[in-house]
Amino acid sequence: MSTDRTDTFGSIAVVGATGAVGREALAILELRGIAASRITALASPRSAGSTIPYAGGPLRVESLDDFDFRAIDVALFCATSGVARAHAPRAVEAGALVVDNSSAFRSDPRIPLVVPEVNADAITPADRLIANPNCSTIILLVTIEPLRKRFGVRDLVVSTYQAVSGAGAAALEELQTQAADVLAGKSPAPRVFKEPCAFNVFSHNSSVDPESGVNVEERKMIDETHKIWGDSRVRITPTCVRVPVFRTHSESVTLSLATPANLDEIRHAFTNARGLRVVDDRAANKFPTSIDAAGGDDVLVGRLRPDPAATLDPRGRTTRWCLFIAGDQLRKGAALNAVQIAELARNRFAVRIPETSRSTTLAG
Amino acid sequence: MSTDRTDTFGSIAVVGATGAVGREALAILELRGIAASRITALASPRSAGSTIPYAGGPLRVESLDDFDFRAIDVALFCATSGVARAHAPRAVEAGALVVDNSSAFRSDPRIPLVVPEVNADAITPADRLIANPNCSTIILLVTIEPLRKRFGVRDLVVSTYQAVSGAGAAALEELQTQAADVLAGKSPAPRVFKEPCAFNVFSHNSSVDPESGVNVEERKMIDETHKIWGDSRVRITPTCVRVPVFRTHSESVTLSLATPANLDEIRHAFTNARGLRVVDDRAANKFPTSIDAAGGDDVLVGRLRPDPAATLDPRGRTTRWCLFIAGDQLRKGAALNAVQIAELARNRFAVRIPETSRSTTLAG
Repeated sequence: MSTDRTDTFGSIAVVGATGAVGREALAILELRGIAASRITALASPRSAGSTIPYAGGPLRVESLDDFDFRAIDVALFCATSGVARAHAPRAVEAGALVVDNSSAFRSDPRIPLVVPEVNADAITPADRLIANPNCSTIILLVTIEPLRKRFGVRDLVVSTYQAVSGAGAAALEELQTQAADVLAGKSPAPRVFKEPCAFNVFSHNSSVDPESGVNVEERKMIDETHKIWGDSRVRITPTCVRVPVFRTHSESVTLSLATPANLDEIRHAFTNARGLRVVDDRAANKFPTSIDAAGGDDVLVGRLRPDPAATLDPRGRTTRWCLFIAGDQLRKGAALNAVQIAELARNRFAVRIPETSRSTTLAG
Repeated sequence: MSTDRTDTFGSIAVVGATGAVGREALAILELRGIAASRITALASPRSAGSTIPYAGGPLRVESLDDFDFRAIDVALFCATSGVARAHAPRAVEAGALVVDNSSAFRSDPRIPLVVPEVNADAITPADRLIANPNCSTIILLVTIEPLRKRFGVRDLVVSTYQAVSGAGAAALEELQTQAADVLAGKSPAPRVFKEPCAFNVFSHNSSVDPESGVNVEERKMIDETHKIWGDSRVRITPTCVRVPVFRTHSESVTLSLATPANLDEIRHAFTNARGLRVVDDRAANKFPTSIDAAGGDDVLVGRLRPDPAATLDPRGRTTRWCLFIAGDQLRKGAALNAVQIAELARNRFAVRIPETSRSTTLAG
């Protein structure tokens, strides 16, 4: 068993290597000093044969369809739910540890759904497939964790300001193209999104439940938070909205703690919290922004303040708090969290699973 | 006394005619068929002598500094608080009805603060100066009014998605310039806003109270709502945020009604409500957007749904509701509301105030 960082992964397959999350996963592996020789870039047959730049030599993209996962230790699935359903089970059966970014397995009670800073313990040595949560959920939960641990959380009202990157590489291109069109006085032609995305704010593009009026993104935030916290009593009221930014999801959060806290206690809870950086300078009006969070590993948290409608006790304590957060959707919201899950699982348990215990998790 | 629309205003001065709100006020007067001969465009001495295009002949901008308001019936102040404090009192003394867009007089208990759809009755025949509320507040309150009237409102949690236009014409230009810079691979140079505004989301630029952590925009939403509703018990929890759109403020609202309602009742309350248009097609994922609201008079309201964390009674009723709104900041958020106030005051009471009753309101 090795805990050396560069050895943590063994051989790695990145599935969906040409997509926005796949490319980000490769960038993160590059930063971690993983040699190109240990990485297999997989994508649809359409992309097979193309190359992706990488430190120490470009990666040649191979076709996922007939790829044999037997030589792979860790498979990072950065593709659609359809691709995950079709190929993740056979990657597991071939012996790989699979971390899946899609929503395919998230609600399966047999599959752990993990934000390493929050519920690392959900992973057991038997788990060969681990689901990476929804981006807005990861960014929210990594931020709330220090408060939940210390004070408990009863309810959350969250409005999101979501980047286009959540809709993939084509959406990133669409924002750029449409913005140029608008500046040139032309009407933008929507393709990825039904609504124009440049200089526009619109309700999240996921489908809306005809009965409840809740969209799929909001439903994910509710259900995944309940699963990750192992507590479905917490009341979660999300409104998910797209804004014209490239890759950062911001979120405005109003919450009720289980026990009251004052500002010093809230700040103290966030001090040295993993995966977070407090940006909260009232005098300078400096708080988390999309641009400051983009490309970084940390989720930024600020605008820490008691709900102005709450009554404070003599020590300045209340259960009602407001905050504003910003995290890179492609990084902590997707690829980074997936890489961290793989590191956690590989470091904590045996690096190679004995043949006999393989292909047990997804049986049935 | 005349109630003919084109006669409603008499002679009109637009103060700050070269600014973003002033220009919008002129566009609205133009749409209402007001002849150029009845309009006086006023601005700082710097802009005096320039011309503004207008139907039936361009308007020549005159200097506000030494302008004599005695021939003016209605003065629409579309300038800063400083300009309003310096010149609105003398316009009132000269006999004009003043509607002020700035925050200079909003908290003065002697001055009515009016959203015509909400508290038209706050205007009495003696009022010669009426304050136009903050843009985010107008857009919120015109939307909530049908619910407040029918069910009562106990609390509001609001997160805003505010256009740059609230910071004036220079901010509109800054968004355009910075977006072009980013697309050209250049770093944007912030001038109006401290943060880059193109492709960025950031906490509202107004100053932040060092004690409470609440910014000035949020404080306005709280205090102005309390004043307009004449009820300071309603709990209001705003988070004000800038997004890279030109002129629409959107708002994500979660609220508690005083008495429970179901979806049919909520929809019914909004039917034929003044100043509103329901855009709420779950199947088509069609809801209010910045672009759809821009340039229009109506505030768009949609995403009507019960709080997913609430328990519905057998008739589908709950007190907890979520909705999403979008309104043109320059129009209903500023110039249109001001014009509507002037129309209301002029139509309801004598068009010319007898000399003897002039200059009473601001005495003392």
